[in-house]
Amino acid sequence: MRGARLGEIVATLGGTLDGDPDRTVERIAPLDTADGRSVSFLAHARYRGQLARTAAGAVIVAPALADDAPVGCARIVTADPYLYYARLTQWWAQRLRDAHGPQRHTSAQIDPTAEVADDASIGPLAVIGPGARIGPGAQLGAHVVVGARASVGSGTRLAPRVTLLDDCEIGARGVVHPGAVIGADGFGFAPDQGAWTKIEQLGAVRIGDDVEIGANTCIDRGALGDTVIGHGVKLDNLIQVGHNVRVGDHTAMAGCVGVAGSARIGAHCTVGGGAVILGHLKIVDHVHVSAATVVTRSILKPGQYSGVFPFDENASWEKNAATLRQLHALRDRLRALEKKP
Amino acid sequence: MRGARLGEIVATLGGTLDGDPDRTVERIAPLDTADGRSVSFLAHARYRGQLARTAAGAVIVAPALADDAPVGCARIVTADPYLYYARLTQWWAQRLRDAHGPQRHTSAQIDPTAEVADDASIGPLAVIGPGARIGPGAQLGAHVVVGARASVGSGTRLAPRVTLLDDCEIGARGVVHPGAVIGADGFGFAPDQGAWTKIEQLGAVRIGDDVEIGANTCIDRGALGDTVIGHGVKLDNLIQVGHNVRVGDHTAMAGCVGVAGSARIGAHCTVGGGAVILGHLKIVDHVHVSAATVVTRSILKPGQYSGVFPFDENASWEKNAATLRQLHALRDRLRALEKKP
Amino acid sequence: MRGARLGEIVATLGGTLDGDPDRTVERIAPLDTADGRSVSFLAHARYRGQLARTAAGAVIVAPALADDAPVGCARIVTADPYLYYARLTQWWAQRLRDAHGPQRHTSAQIDPTAEVADDASIGPLAVIGPGARIGPGAQLGAHVVVGARASVGSGTRLAPRVTLLDDCEIGARGVVHPGAVIGADGFGFAPDQGAWTKIEQLGAVRIGDDVEIGANTCIDRGALGDTVIGHGVKLDNLIQVGHNVRVGDHTAMAGCVGVAGSARIGAHCTVGGGAVILGHLKIVDHVHVSAATVVTRSILKPGQYSGVFPFDENASWEKNAATLRQLHALRDRLRALEKKP
Repeated sequence: MRGARLGEIVATLGGTLDGDPDRTVERIAPLDTADGRSVSFLAHARYRGQLARTAAGAVIVAPALADDAPVGCARIVTADPYLYYARLTQWWAQRLRDAHGPQRHTSAQIDPTAEVADDASIGPLAVIGPGARIGPGAQLGAHVVVGARASVGSGTRLAPRVTLLDDCEIGARGVVHPGAVIGADGFGFAPDQGAWTKIEQLGAVRIGDDVEIGANTCIDRGALGDTVIGHGVKLDNLIQVGHNVRVGDHTAMAGCVGVAGSARIGAHCTVGGGAVILGHLKIVDHVHVSAATVVTRSILKPGQYSGVFPFDENASWEKNAATLRQLHALRDRLRALEKKP
Repeated sequence: MRGARLGEIVATLGGTLDGDPDRTVERIAPLDTADGRSVSFLAHARYRGQLARTAAGAVIVAPALADDAPVGCARIVTADPYLYYARLTQWWAQRLRDAHGPQRHTSAQIDPTAEVADDASIGPLAVIGPGARIGPGAQLGAHVVVGARASVGSGTRLAPRVTLLDDCEIGARGVVHPGAVIGADGFGFAPDQGAWTKIEQLGAVRIGDDVEIGANTCIDRGALGDTVIGHGVKLDNLIQVGHNVRVGDHTAMAGCVGVAGSARIGAHCTVGGGAVILGHLKIVDHVHVSAATVVTRSILKPGQYSGVFPFDENASWEKNAATLRQLHALRDRLRALEKKP
Repeated sequence: MRGARLGEIVATLGGTLDGDPDRTVERIAPLDTADGRSVSFLAHARYRGQLARTAAGAVIVAPALADDAPVGCARIVTADPYLYYARLTQWWAQRLRDAHGPQRHTSAQIDPTAEVADDASIGPLAVIGPGARIGPGAQLGAHVVVGARASVGSGTRLAPRVTLLDDCEIGARGVVHPGAVIGADGFGFAPDQGAWTKIEQLGAVRIGDDVEIGANTCIDRGALGDTVIGHGVKLDNLIQVGHNVRVGDHTAMAGCVGVAGSARIGAHCTVGGGAVILGHLKIVDHVHVSAATVVTRSILKPGQYSGVFPFDENASWEKNAATLRQLHALRDRLRALEKKP
């Protein structure tokens, strides 16, 4: 691919260029591995030392730190260099993407009653069910399965091997990664003399606009009502979202999180990797759950919440863990001592 | 879809109707969102307050609580309303399902040596290997892969993108959700001078009748013998079951559970979401493991077992976690105090 | 399948045969379920009692324990019986595999610009993108998706439904199990006034030789540089490996492990099932992390590390967990007592 002129970058993305607009860069790179053909960025002041030593041809930097860049390194000065970097990657990826128009592979199996926008792309061996709707500019990769009456919003991209089951819908400008399953049955059974009787899951999944869903992540359909994912939500890989869960706008969850059925999670929350949120809980807006924390009660106050056993060398852990099983008794012994005259 | 007459429901599912048998309902809904066209249910006495305020046209209710329903709300009186609700969802879902006969999509790749029952349905682009057997009334969704000599029991439903590998079998009336992988190699290697030599996994997976397996769940094939899942077992999404595990009849596991190789889990157990069961352990019947608990020893007595770090505001957690790393030393200091005269 | 002569086994795999070379065995079995047509093995001295009672026709055994085998049981004597057993399973599996030559299924969708070795096998409905390279002897199962410019090394086996996305590569002699996703986008977003702006992931995934990757495991592509998996690495099922992670040679991870972005894990490490490794950490060579442990800081010294809440009967756990939330205060009370004259 041809390189990008710095002048072209600032003309498109803004910022003030301190350097030669005709200088070209051929890749985006971190400060410490950048070379003269790279544009880099300083996301946090704590990497300031790397900035001073970088070999990058250009750097995206905040006004206060612009002077730290080495002599000869061009600067793109902007208030939020990390956000600028994000936008630059988008512009860059757009340039890299194959510039062919929309395509509909002949091997795709599209039900005649499905409504597929003329400029949607449908990959090889995709299957689109009866009554499904695929919006303008949507891109469906190889082996995507879209169920009956399911709906894909405009500009949304389903990577290869995504499954969107019957009656489920995702809004506009979404991205779903391979293997994600949207709309499998929620886990519901009534006990019956030692066996389990299935509760058919009659709801669906409704996903807002600008949502990203990671590889092999599962979002179950609701039992009666729907499972609802708000606008701008970002879910990483291998996440489980149970039936009838509600996730508020712009909430983000890292990999391997499990959210049990009917939990209601607010907007602008973050959930660290491997955390577990039990069912039927309420979590208000602006709550941040640390990685691997198990949320067993509702959280009604914004803030950061944690609960992880501190790891240690195995021998130390063994002694402390064994003592932990007597902790309540230790407390009683302490009380007894305190009461001694 | 046409509504259902209350008289038709009790004629099919039993119970005593206190109300007009010609009244029709169009959906099943929770008490708090039900309207006059909804049938609802009271699963637990603790929702009694909701019953008194519901706008539902009809409610499934136990005899002792039937009088709490509002005037004008029809009652279907039954000893176990939750079980009745489960059966109602099944009847309801059956009415909703497309009423076409068995279909075999022309794009499916079926090996000529596979035995497929005449009334089995095979979805688009499914692949069925040599010697596989697909039982009467089985339904295989789009993109299902069934390996050589694998077997699917009568009436079992494999959702789109399920993989059942060579020589593995699932019994009758099962449900497997998208992305589930049955019969991948167990994780077995012999150390060899710092590297790992693969132990080929020569066993298979045998699954009983009436089993449900969640989306993207994995059940590995055995190393020498088989991995065995009993009758009536229910596994949620994203569960890992290692090689040679045995799961007893009617045991249920919630999402994201990990069961390591050769664990033997009894019948009628429940395992909460995100729990981990280490390898080569034995768990007897009627054991209940709480969510996110790590089972590191065999459990030989029925009961409820737990082991989760209690979450807290981050600052409190940090202090307690730091102290926990000195817990054994604290115990010693307490002992020393106790010995003081 | 015809049985294997003991003489044939030692001629191929080495070891000293103490018994009749013309004796045949028909299966490999554990000591306790073996019969006269089985070959078994003694992996650890602690199973010595089983050896004395086994009905196996032949047993693989170390020199020091060979005399413990029952009279009439043939012995294959070797220094490392477990490694010998591993090699025997490989030889056995090779004999079981269908002995047909390489095949290219007519339903596969292979881009004309892809380079596929003549003796590679391509399964039904596989999709191979433009510019992809498939090495000699590689085997791609049904429904495999290989993206544009991706590369599969010689002899590597991709099971059905594996996804290897654009520009990613795996070396020689690898095994990847169904549903694995290699090269989905890493989880990267810049905050922007309460919403998230996507950072396009411009790197790829590079995987060495002799790597095994489990079912539904995900390895994300790098943000700028690549995610790198060393030679001989073994990853079990349902593992999440974030962007820009580096895993050193011959490291093994059990199921359900999560490794957050930019973590650097050394060579010859093991990570137990369900463990979580936070982002941007460094773990040196020869570190062993116990199952379900959460690694929150770098580990710079080889050894075994653990951090799991000990499980208990629920009532005991509840009391200890409640006390744990006051642990720091208890320490202060202990200090106060110690200071008393």
